[in-house]
Amino acid sequence: MGDVAEPVGRLIDQFKKLPGIGSKSAQRLAFFILKMETVDASQIAEAILEVKRSIRSCSTCNNLTDIDPCQFCSNPTRSDKVLCIVEESTNILAVEKTHAFNGRYHVLMGSLSPLKGITPDQLTIASLLRRLESGMVEEVIVATNPNVEGETTALYLSRLVKPLGIRVTRIGLGLPIGGDLEYADEVTMAKALEGRREL
Amino acid sequence: MGDVAEPVGRLIDQFKKLPGIGSKSAQRLAFFILKMETVDASQIAEAILEVKRSIRSCSTCNNLTDIDPCQFCSNPTRSDKVLCIVEESTNILAVEKTHAFNGRYHVLMGSLSPLKGITPDQLTIASLLRRLESGMVEEVIVATNPNVEGETTALYLSRLVKPLGIRVTRIGLGLPIGGDLEYADEVTMAKALEGRREL
Repeated sequence: MGDVAEPVGRLIDQFKKLPGIGSKSAQRLAFFILKMETVDASQIAEAILEVKRSIRSCSTCNNLTDIDPCQFCSNPTRSDKVLCIVEESTNILAVEKTHAFNGRYHVLMGSLSPLKGITPDQLTIASLLRRLESGMVEEVIVATNPNVEGETTALYLSRLVKPLGIRVTRIGLGLPIGGDLEYADEVTMAKALEGRREL
Repeated sequence: MGDVAEPVGRLIDQFKKLPGIGSKSAQRLAFFILKMETVDASQIAEAILEVKRSIRSCSTCNNLTDIDPCQFCSNPTRSDKVLCIVEESTNILAVEKTHAFNGRYHVLMGSLSPLKGITPDQLTIASLLRRLESGMVEEVIVATNPNVEGETTALYLSRLVKPLGIRVTRIGLGLPIGGDLEYADEVTMAKALEGRREL
């Protein structure tokens, strides 16, 4: 930049790395930090470092967690009979917000994409199959994103899981095609859970 | 939240403190940090801490800087004859981007606001008058924001500075009323500098 002090320029550059933050927003955030009390700014920095220190993948479902197994896997009041499959840890939030699901989760860590070269062995499908071997799961709800990759993944999973005698369902219509689970509102998401269909 | 691990919830809360970041954005940023390499996330945290450690107010113009006097006050190629008065350090960027100004700056650290109880003694007006005593300044350009507080401040400054035999000008029309200097584009800002009028 040259117009700002070097450490400010560095902070602006760091903010620009974040999603949805352009030059103007990064500049605004940096100057906001400059005006903050040092103790408050340190809390932000500390929260970033702490999250990287303490958060790991759940060894059962791959959800991002600070305890292992995670809160959903270790909760005795949740049903082992229904397993909801999502692409990312953050998608669990969208499902939880509906208060319409009380089963377990499995995070795929992505979706199948021939274009991006993402194949089944890059997802957590092997560990999913090991979980299903227990015989406790009666239904798998595929809550991958309503886009090409998500649909492909759903179809792939249904062909893999159905032969095991487990019911495979897909979250219902209601989510706009081409969208992202992360931005679904609670009502739409609840409708989608309620209207799930056989694959 | 309860749906996310505690450190993630804390990070989301920290992001929500920042301007223009709501719940959804904060969540998105937090999960982005989670997915980042630890070294990259640490760089963000470090940039926040470093900026708070190294940045202070310039003892001459109050611009936020890591060197004192700041780059604008210490630059020998800039003219001492014209002084541009802005409300905030960040407004200097908007002026600099036009490449149409080569004088010095003075940051008021706010604007007069009877409603918010901001009086002249809370701004850096005393130090401004001390700077003007040197007799080097021939023109003061008042580049406060084009809103009620900024206009009030401009009028107040003109009454204070004109009796010293110094020309006082206001940046020209061109900036939308009710707006903020920070979001002006370069062309509008250049027009405003060019069309400045006597107060």
